[in-house]
Amino acid sequence: MLQVPEEVLSVSKAEFAAEAQSLRVDLINAQYDLKSADFSVVLNITGDDRVGVVELVQLMHEWMDARYMETHVFQAPSDEERERPPFWRYWRVLPPRGRIGVFLGAWGLDAVHDRAIAAIDGDGFAQRIAHIRQFEQSLASDGTLVLKFWVHTPRETMKARLRKAKKDPRSNWQIEAADHDLYEIFGKAMPHVETLLDATHTDFAPWHVLDGREDRPRNLEFGRVLLDALQARLLMAAATALPTSPSISPPTSPSASPPIAQGPLGPYPDVLANLDLDRSLAEAEYEERLDECQARLASLTRLARARGQSSVLVFEGWDAAGKGGVIRRITQSMAVRDYRVVPFAAPTDEERARHYLWRFWRQLPPAGQMLILDRSWYGRVLVERVEHFARIDEWQRAYGEIVDFEAQLVERGMVVQKFWLHIDPDEQLARFRAREQTPYKKYKLTEEDYRNRERWDDYVAAVNEMVARTSTPEAPWHLIAATDKRHCRIQVLDAVCAALQQSLGAD
Amino acid sequence: MLQVPEEVLSVSKAEFAAEAQSLRVDLINAQYDLKSADFSVVLNITGDDRVGVVELVQLMHEWMDARYMETHVFQAPSDEERERPPFWRYWRVLPPRGRIGVFLGAWGLDAVHDRAIAAIDGDGFAQRIAHIRQFEQSLASDGTLVLKFWVHTPRETMKARLRKAKKDPRSNWQIEAADHDLYEIFGKAMPHVETLLDATHTDFAPWHVLDGREDRPRNLEFGRVLLDALQARLLMAAATALPTSPSISPPTSPSASPPIAQGPLGPYPDVLANLDLDRSLAEAEYEERLDECQARLASLTRLARARGQSSVLVFEGWDAAGKGGVIRRITQSMAVRDYRVVPFAAPTDEERARHYLWRFWRQLPPAGQMLILDRSWYGRVLVERVEHFARIDEWQRAYGEIVDFEAQLVERGMVVQKFWLHIDPDEQLARFRAREQTPYKKYKLTEEDYRNRERWDDYVAAVNEMVARTSTPEAPWHLIAATDKRHCRIQVLDAVCAALQQSLGAD
Repeated sequence: MLQVPEEVLSVSKAEFAAEAQSLRVDLINAQYDLKSADFSVVLNITGDDRVGVVELVQLMHEWMDARYMETHVFQAPSDEERERPPFWRYWRVLPPRGRIGVFLGAWGLDAVHDRAIAAIDGDGFAQRIAHIRQFEQSLASDGTLVLKFWVHTPRETMKARLRKAKKDPRSNWQIEAADHDLYEIFGKAMPHVETLLDATHTDFAPWHVLDGREDRPRNLEFGRVLLDALQARLLMAAATALPTSPSISPPTSPSASPPIAQGPLGPYPDVLANLDLDRSLAEAEYEERLDECQARLASLTRLARARGQSSVLVFEGWDAAGKGGVIRRITQSMAVRDYRVVPFAAPTDEERARHYLWRFWRQLPPAGQMLILDRSWYGRVLVERVEHFARIDEWQRAYGEIVDFEAQLVERGMVVQKFWLHIDPDEQLARFRAREQTPYKKYKLTEEDYRNRERWDDYVAAVNEMVARTSTPEAPWHLIAATDKRHCRIQVLDAVCAALQQSLGAD
Repeated sequence: MLQVPEEVLSVSKAEFAAEAQSLRVDLINAQYDLKSADFSVVLNITGDDRVGVVELVQLMHEWMDARYMETHVFQAPSDEERERPPFWRYWRVLPPRGRIGVFLGAWGLDAVHDRAIAAIDGDGFAQRIAHIRQFEQSLASDGTLVLKFWVHTPRETMKARLRKAKKDPRSNWQIEAADHDLYEIFGKAMPHVETLLDATHTDFAPWHVLDGREDRPRNLEFGRVLLDALQARLLMAAATALPTSPSISPPTSPSASPPIAQGPLGPYPDVLANLDLDRSLAEAEYEERLDECQARLASLTRLARARGQSSVLVFEGWDAAGKGGVIRRITQSMAVRDYRVVPFAAPTDEERARHYLWRFWRQLPPAGQMLILDRSWYGRVLVERVEHFARIDEWQRAYGEIVDFEAQLVERGMVVQKFWLHIDPDEQLARFRAREQTPYKKYKLTEEDYRNRERWDDYVAAVNEMVARTSTPEAPWHLIAATDKRHCRIQVLDAVCAALQQSLGAD
């Protein structure tokens, strides 16, 4: 399966940009449709070209919504994993229906690796392959879309790349020492790769071999295959699904946005009123600062990984304040294994059966990882308070519970930073209107989005109390003026870098 | 808080037996009521008398239903635990509402231990105590019943016990080398224990100090406090709960048990028909064999723990066939940390959102532990098949999925044994009738229990196919004639011992 054509496919920058633009819209819309579909997606991205694999995963995170996919990088098994069968670590992180699980390397590559270093013999390899087939078939039969990509770069190209990286490490920083080892291992392993690909290329879990020699055609090919598969599976699901209630069309008459009452805001300082919402940043300065911040963040998070320094970033703010965009600017410059983005909406029934903090405890990051929360435990004192989902004694005691919880994270050595992204009601309405026009389904609005606006002042009171009662020197709140997205993003990136820097003692 | 009266309370064997009998009925009924209540129970059993603590937990497992409580013994943290704050390992195993979580040692003892060995200083101890208070208050505010027992045995009594154990290790086998170390540590630690008890004795999470000098009064006191607290909390819950639907009274007319149709049983050998259901064992022989088997199992499971040998025991069978009684005979002779009993009924929504095997993968035991399943993945090809909860293609492919799953357990080195407990329809009906008369609410019957009888033959066909397609030399099915409970229990115990023995190469 590993033949590549003699001629390398070439795609110009302009051609790439044009196709990429339409692929992105379609991919994110497919991902949005998936959210309410009755199946999950298991994506295995692997290959003999490690850098290529990582670049594809980065691309996915750039093109799609990281909040609805979980990416898993498998390194040496933990002691809890070693005590179970090898497939336990894949099973424990399988995505639920509606979500995408991205598995780097994982079961196929592990089998090849173990065979190449003679940790298993031919019989062991055959047995492993049988388990892989059964595993993938089980998932597929359960409705999971299983897709596998093998990035293949011929030996001679790979050798040339490594030689170049040795000569000029700075411009080829993606190449690590491990890649030289991998090159050696794959020297012996290619026959095993062939066996693996042949034996596990099935109707229910096909392999797609991607030519790793050139980035642009590789990326487009990956995007196309992924999109086709997603769309085909969604069509199938739609054909067999029950009809759902019609989507709500947002109200368009002026009455939909009642005047925002300016009532009393409670006894806490109105910290939001003091924010200068007019602050902005010019495009050129933004681009420069963004590059600078992202480069800084990239090196800080590499250092954090090496030192085992974890961090927890909490994002709260008005709907449409731009949380998603900020989070994307943070993750863009980071290695995929170094962060995890978790969105919080309604709890599952296992979560509802326990204390409300349980669902957050279970997500805490391992050493060296950054956990980025799109909404968080603060829901207890924001939406649950304002909408009366929690009783008054419940949200009142939450302040103390939260302060203690965050103190424990800090004592464990984690960096904890919290961000409130602030806009005013007019800006929000303008953004809602704009969203109605975008081709991205992820911005589909519901009546609830509009209804929430009626309680603006209650939310402001809740934010003021929250900031007053839970901002601590070790886990501070940052109130960010978010009318100008450029200003907002740089403010957040700056704060994240500063906190990491202080904790790591870096300069 | 640690004063004990000069005079040791004494309770005769007869007094103990009488009170224990009524405590057991009340405790198990309270546990049954808890199952449908809206709160969980967190029980912390700890103390300076390790053997006493372990004996109390054993007692709980004997008196109550191990299927609805999870017992957690905390040893050195795993690497995944070390990467999170110290309380993470308690949070991750908190029981859901309706269940009891038993925590041995845990947060309080850890704090005292760390202080005694100077891993933390006075400030660190104070900080830890603050976290304990907050943790317990959070749980209590969430409705959890938090109960803490400290078993205290004065130094002089403890010293005498250790001296005796050194002289005669065989009759004092509960005393381990670790107890001598603990004795030394507590020599320095008692002032810290006093501080801990004073600072964390609260309305919402009170300490109960138990005098550890004599077993019988200690056990009764423990049972009384536990029962009072459970009953009081249940009353409170009942007072605030919404009315539930009236309990179903089982049909009593003969029509309730329609004649069992004898239809065709499918193409698989009718293995159940070959079972001699009349086999039995006399009382005296049973008692002797039981002692023998349990002693053997006790030493085998100790060896399994030392060798890191895990095992998985699957129990399936007709309702009222006696699974619970068999499981209790297995666990009676084992250390609590060496096994976990997990009952499987309806899946949670997180489980429903994934492949049906996911809920079993997540329960796999760590090294050295025995997982005992009261119902299992075989539900897919039994109840889900017969009641049409699964489509035909779903349960058909389950055979292959299950065989592969169990093969992976075996390859990891686990012992896998499966038991079908068999009775005939008349015996089942007789047992149902008897259950209606017991004072134990856990045996409350529903209409469904009777209705299931109508499909007896369908179940027989399903069992025959299941045995034919999933019995393997490494993970065999044992078909057990269960009309005579004594015969059944010894058969199972024998098979479990034989499998463990073979795997451990013990004699």
